Amino acid sequence: MKFELTILGSSSATPIYNRNPTAQLLNINEKHYLIDCGEATQMQLLRLRIKASKIDQIFISHLHGDHYFGLIGLISSYHLNGRNKELTIYGPQGLREILDIQLKYSQTQLRYELKVVEINPKVSEQIFENEDIVVRTIILNHRIPCTGFLFEQKLRKRRIIKEKIQDMDLSPADKMRLKSGEDVEYQGQVLKNQDYTLDPIEPKKYAYCSDTLYDTSYFELIREADVLYHEATFTHDYLERAVETYHTTAQQAGEIASLCKVKKLIIGHFSARYLDLTKHLNEARTQFPNTFLAIDGESYVI
Amino acid sequence: MKFELTILGSSSATPIYNRNPTAQLLNINEKHYLIDCGEATQMQLLRLRIKASKIDQIFISHLHGDHYFGLIGLISSYHLNGRNKELTIYGPQGLREILDIQLKYSQTQLRYELKVVEINPKVSEQIFENEDIVVRTIILNHRIPCTGFLFEQKLRKRRIIKEKIQDMDLSPADKMRLKSGEDVEYQGQVLKNQDYTLDPIEPKKYAYCSDTLYDTSYFELIREADVLYHEATFTHDYLERAVETYHTTAQQAGEIASLCKVKKLIIGHFSARYLDLTKHLNEARTQFPNTFLAIDGESYVI
Repeated sequence: MKFELTILGSSSATPIYNRNPTAQLLNINEKHYLIDCGEATQMQLLRLRIKASKIDQIFISHLHGDHYFGLIGLISSYHLNGRNKELTIYGPQGLREILDIQLKYSQTQLRYELKVVEINPKVSEQIFENEDIVVRTIILNHRIPCTGFLFEQKLRKRRIIKEKIQDMDLSPADKMRLKSGEDVEYQGQVLKNQDYTLDPIEPKKYAYCSDTLYDTSYFELIREADVLYHEATFTHDYLERAVETYHTTAQQAGEIASLCKVKKLIIGHFSARYLDLTKHLNEARTQFPNTFLAIDGESYVI
Repeated sequence: MKFELTILGSSSATPIYNRNPTAQLLNINEKHYLIDCGEATQMQLLRLRIKASKIDQIFISHLHGDHYFGLIGLISSYHLNGRNKELTIYGPQGLREILDIQLKYSQTQLRYELKVVEINPKVSEQIFENEDIVVRTIILNHRIPCTGFLFEQKLRKRRIIKEKIQDMDLSPADKMRLKSGEDVEYQGQVLKNQDYTLDPIEPKKYAYCSDTLYDTSYFELIREADVLYHEATFTHDYLERAVETYHTTAQQAGEIASLCKVKKLIIGHFSARYLDLTKHLNEARTQFPNTFLAIDGESYVI
């Protein structure tokens, strides 16, 4: 099952050096989820030839513009391009009001249903579930209410060992039973489940943390994530500035990855003061070697 | 005196084929004026290495998103980049409310003064004046209140014929008198103004018309403009669609340019249905040969 992250924007605050403000696309089993939607996210999707129409859920972490100013444009383009399927946006209190007032003044009656689900900024909650995944909020510590998102795959079915059944004529129903962990009767004999199947593939976890002060309160939730995206707005020499603005340094992001025993760290949300990001990368890697930079347009397998 | 137009976006409705939604920059005597501000206008300015900070006045024609969704991002970036000089936006009723609600939820207290001047959508009025120009609204006919803008240079001073005074030792005050049209006494003789000066350079006019139904009511105002930018969303085979959506065809734009005896026509605001714009150009040129396409990133001397 595909589980792939594409970075649409890696900049904090203002766009610069070909880095767009924050937005990410998750492709999980060919379903597309958008996380944050900075200005010009729809242009990034166009540029990368990703069909925006495939997105049915959007998750907005907070109402600083670099995380959502592209949303109204995307919503409008859906309307103008004839979308008719429902779109659900999970976001902070206030988002609905912001979108509605812009639709009101343009006298736009959307052709599709737009649901905006208000996130509770105080308590981590499950906010979305389908056959593939569950999404939970991560309570972050920022200047305004802000949540990250934890995308967890569901436990899948057991895997039949094909070689062992290739000469049998098992019915689809029997195969389904095996996948579900049951034993199966076949030509008078019992096929013991543990002899014919393997454990399901371990479900994967992707944790998205932006923007936040270094704060241990959310560490438990992101523990052992396969991939942790964590903001690393500043290098550690700007720790004071990071604290002042409720942001994290690259060194701290590395520390968090290490403490939480994640498998891979991607850092992003880089301040406009940095043209070169080598220092961010090196700094995080001193704490957690398996660190990578979020680069606009790049994809990462989870 | 410089009078130059740079196209930052030439697309209607949705961004496509590297065409951004509508935005234009006017450089008049090294003062920068922004006309409309579709999504990602600040990225276009970055890409073209135009300092956004030079802009002190922004003119917004109407509240369809393709003409203003980039405004809140630009305003925020100004704040984050430490702007402290006043910014004035001329735009429709509702714009202030839209901006304020977004600033409210991001808890942003702008570091500079943001003035939003509400445009009367019913009556053409002078809305701006400085030492170089006067700006007047053009009442257009669109689905929602919409005004174009007429930028008129002021009449400049007379031009001294340098060759005639090069051997004289005229004081700066006397030169100023000549430029102002007065005669001047020099070593007992009277220098007749008409012998020593030429008429001022003819003031230039730039008319911006987007978006609108073909409507003769605004023709008088744009008459004899040096450059007319007119929307030409559709080719003439889509006339019905143009009328339905309150837009103009390329042929009509050409007709308007011809009827209004402008010197040069630039057409833009192209529908996403057109990849190739040759037909637009040819169609407008059958009516008005001196027509050019608005191309993102291109500049046009007025």
